[in-house]
Amino acid sequence: MNSRRSGRRPAEYREEQTPTSGIYFKCRRPLYSGRSRFQRIDVFENDAFGRVLFLDGLVQTTERDEFFYHEMLVHPALLRHPRPRRVLIIGGGDGGALREVLRHPAVERATLVEIDGRVIDVCRTHFGWLEPSLRGGRAEVVVGDGNAFLAESGERFDVILVDSSDPVGPSTVLHERAFYARVKRALKPGGIAAAQAGALLYHLDSHRRKSAFLRRMFRHALFYTGPVPTYPGGTWCYVFCSDAVPPLGRLRRTPPGLRYYNPGIHRAAFALPNLLAEKLS
Amino acid sequence: MNSRRSGRRPAEYREEQTPTSGIYFKCRRPLYSGRSRFQRIDVFENDAFGRVLFLDGLVQTTERDEFFYHEMLVHPALLRHPRPRRVLIIGGGDGGALREVLRHPAVERATLVEIDGRVIDVCRTHFGWLEPSLRGGRAEVVVGDGNAFLAESGERFDVILVDSSDPVGPSTVLHERAFYARVKRALKPGGIAAAQAGALLYHLDSHRRKSAFLRRMFRHALFYTGPVPTYPGGTWCYVFCSDAVPPLGRLRRTPPGLRYYNPGIHRAAFALPNLLAEKLS
Repeated sequence: MNSRRSGRRPAEYREEQTPTSGIYFKCRRPLYSGRSRFQRIDVFENDAFGRVLFLDGLVQTTERDEFFYHEMLVHPALLRHPRPRRVLIIGGGDGGALREVLRHPAVERATLVEIDGRVIDVCRTHFGWLEPSLRGGRAEVVVGDGNAFLAESGERFDVILVDSSDPVGPSTVLHERAFYARVKRALKPGGIAAAQAGALLYHLDSHRRKSAFLRRMFRHALFYTGPVPTYPGGTWCYVFCSDAVPPLGRLRRTPPGLRYYNPGIHRAAFALPNLLAEKLS
Repeated sequence: MNSRRSGRRPAEYREEQTPTSGIYFKCRRPLYSGRSRFQRIDVFENDAFGRVLFLDGLVQTTERDEFFYHEMLVHPALLRHPRPRRVLIIGGGDGGALREVLRHPAVERATLVEIDGRVIDVCRTHFGWLEPSLRGGRAEVVVGDGNAFLAESGERFDVILVDSSDPVGPSTVLHERAFYARVKRALKPGGIAAAQAGALLYHLDSHRRKSAFLRRMFRHALFYTGPVPTYPGGTWCYVFCSDAVPPLGRLRRTPPGLRYYNPGIHRAAFALPNLLAEKLS
């Protein structure tokens, strides 16, 4: 944690996006700080961004800008699948991705597998997204290792969403080849996987490596981008993977209530900046 | 300036993007700090972003990420114009927009009108973009008020680019209706204007007002967006204005050497997020 502390109450939280630059938030009210088996967890209130979740000193989500990330992780895959009945989310203990998945009436059951039960408990208390999702009867939460879940569960899914944190700490394996091979095996025929892939500006070499193995593994494996104001560099990368469905084509009807995503944004998100396209070619 | 000073050497510069959040840069080496007739000017070196220019405490440009902004301000208008021979840049004293304009062999003469001669002097010393542009014989620099220049000069331009700072300080008038009426009068038949318009996340009400008067003024007046990692919220808005040329259509050949812009990005940039589209409708 890079928070600056004055006595027991931190005046400010900051994420070091590079060793010499980053983002800071003044803390109106600390809500939770603790260490789970896996990571340090901090939740606090900021006047501009509302409630903010840090894991191991990195911004995971804020009330004000989480919709950018969650809409772009979820809807491109969900709207390209003709009938996404069974959805798996790996990570995403804050519940934002699950909320977006459940906007789709086609989804009959969504399973969220989060390794850190403390993240789930803290987010159920301090963020309003998880609780309503669990009331509708279509969602279940499994506290466990997503990688092991895929290896052990015999289930198959129409859509798998990888809402991991960055490749440090417990999420490291969720950025590797062996994990994506398990994702592929857990997809039903016609299935689609989408994953967060890191910052446009800061993780270009990681994108190159990931794209290389994903393109050997899936018939369609394409990066796409979208803004996330409080994430490093402000523009985030995602990857869309499928053996059956290319990312561009007919979209099902967009659910109401979205603040970022629309069909024009869907197509636009797959237009890659030169600095990224050159790394992936 | 929101820099934190320890003695004469600031340890850190920060921009308050909201009253309770923002971006910070550790200062490897201060290069210039002073106050012109118009504003406070600071240039320093940061390990992650290279040389950084602050005006009145706001990030204007950094060596590492300036290309996102300058490419997106310049190339959409320049590549939609069939023969952009005469170009005017209002603001842009750092020289980044001028460098991008001169990538186009079609440009016979580019005039940069910057109100603050001190900005030009400081940027000529500390950034490498202006000097080579002035050597080629196609560029001229006028130190003066862009608004007055448009009112007094009888010249007409194929493309006018408004590279203003934010609507505080000397740039306030460059965001108003009367200024854009002068821009319109200074365009040749078939001309195109493009202007920076502020942050996607923070300036939505300003976008609404600006869009309303620009759409009454120009046959085509459309917002577009692109990332700028060190600007507030990480995603910036621009506006494309023309009575003759819509923003989408045939593009001239993209000049080599660009790091962000390409024809796919051009089309993608005009796909607006719901939160912006709703404000502009």
